[in-house]
Amino acid sequence: MKVIRSPIQLRLQVKRFRTKGETIGFVPTMGALHGGHLPLIRRARKECDRVIVSIFVNPLQFGPREDYRRYPRTFFSDVSLLQKEKVDILFFPSVKTMYPDLFSATVTVNGLSERLCGAFRPGHFQGVATACTKLFNLVQPDTVYFGGKDYQQTRIIDRLLNDFDFNIRLKVLPTVREKNGLAMSSRNRYLSSRERKKALLLSKALIAGGALIQGGEKSVLRVLSRMKSILKDPAVRVDYVSIVDPKTLEEVSRFRGKVLLAVAARIGKTRLIDNILVRGS
Amino acid sequence: MKVIRSPIQLRLQVKRFRTKGETIGFVPTMGALHGGHLPLIRRARKECDRVIVSIFVNPLQFGPREDYRRYPRTFFSDVSLLQKEKVDILFFPSVKTMYPDLFSATVTVNGLSERLCGAFRPGHFQGVATACTKLFNLVQPDTVYFGGKDYQQTRIIDRLLNDFDFNIRLKVLPTVREKNGLAMSSRNRYLSSRERKKALLLSKALIAGGALIQGGEKSVLRVLSRMKSILKDPAVRVDYVSIVDPKTLEEVSRFRGKVLLAVAARIGKTRLIDNILVRGS
Repeated sequence: MKVIRSPIQLRLQVKRFRTKGETIGFVPTMGALHGGHLPLIRRARKECDRVIVSIFVNPLQFGPREDYRRYPRTFFSDVSLLQKEKVDILFFPSVKTMYPDLFSATVTVNGLSERLCGAFRPGHFQGVATACTKLFNLVQPDTVYFGGKDYQQTRIIDRLLNDFDFNIRLKVLPTVREKNGLAMSSRNRYLSSRERKKALLLSKALIAGGALIQGGEKSVLRVLSRMKSILKDPAVRVDYVSIVDPKTLEEVSRFRGKVLLAVAARIGKTRLIDNILVRGS
Repeated sequence: MKVIRSPIQLRLQVKRFRTKGETIGFVPTMGALHGGHLPLIRRARKECDRVIVSIFVNPLQFGPREDYRRYPRTFFSDVSLLQKEKVDILFFPSVKTMYPDLFSATVTVNGLSERLCGAFRPGHFQGVATACTKLFNLVQPDTVYFGGKDYQQTRIIDRLLNDFDFNIRLKVLPTVREKNGLAMSSRNRYLSSRERKKALLLSKALIAGGALIQGGEKSVLRVLSRMKSILKDPAVRVDYVSIVDPKTLEEVSRFRGKVLLAVAARIGKTRLIDNILVRGS
């Protein structure tokens, strides 16, 4: 595996692949790789001639009071994991490379970016969309791979690819969970063992809500209040519990077709999110 | 020359060029082609294996009270001009193709977009940057060609290309003027013969300002007031007369290195802009 820090070097390498007619799969990450990243990398490895993974803790997608500084950075273990997975290139640019002094352009996916997490993390999805626009132009992949835990992010990337006519396919793979149901996330490292137990309430609430809907419950309010009652705990501060249309992310008033149950909550200093798709009747 | 309306067809064609290793020059326009467009097309023809011109009157870059509806559309004479110039492809997408119902992403080049015309045309440069991002991704040119009359636009495109890591070279060609000094523009078609005479005051003011600076005048205020006095006419409503740094577009307080003299004024219902670069001592 080659570790490339410079955009110019990356471009040269990509051009070499392209000249040989090779396809490129791309997995953008913020590092601190875990079991949720593995299926993305393996799927890319299976489907594409070349696999490029990026590690970039993107300052633009963190709010001023968020965890940019303390976000886990585990470069060396990330590298050995990626080598084992036979990744061709790790792109690991510096912040100064990505955002030099005069940098001033931003991408906004209006509408989708304001809902769910967007209401609690102003600027977050603008940061995501801006960094992804750059990475997509640098890597020029055929397919990008994202994890389903960040459902809203995947909707925004889908819009971005469509709206800006990127010639890139998006593949979203299912959320990977620990046996106890906890969605895998780099931020789980922040949790104390007591907090990890409390964190299970998120997936519990989703599963309970999903079960109610599949059992024929017709009232959105009753499902929401069941989920909220599960999350009612002094250690859990809920940002939102929502049932939304999976395409528009707008709150639904009744169940028809698929709906997304989504939760965000802070446990101690750690903000966690989770979601499941459920088919209403 | 092929006229292509569909992005998919365009992509196929571009891929064919790319596979043969041919270079692509791109001239994005809003049609109503005139003598100012010709050098752009000819330069592209000279420098690149393939030349793609787009005609797209971009609704996003017009304000609600601006001239989107009445903007000159001269498709058939544009086509015959482009054929004479041996353009390979005219890309002529519909508005619905470029901005389908769910379209919601925007590109903003902060800072540069707010200055000069940006203060009078809110959203204009966001519309330009958004459409160009799409066109650049569709056409995937090696080089794009823009005219110097829209100086601020060229600065914004330059930022866009850099900030989003497009692998595209920008060439800006000098403003083309009629013998009397009037900068060529599609909007000149709007002018009555009486208004055309008044329109000459813009280039006159710029030339007078430039002459003062080259003659050693040290006071920015005196140069500005000379330019304003030339534009003082009941038929001319000035939006701005500015002397700015050519890179940042920020007003200068003294002359050092190159400065940009820029004017925008409305004559009747027609808004005209013009600029010249002058080296201060």
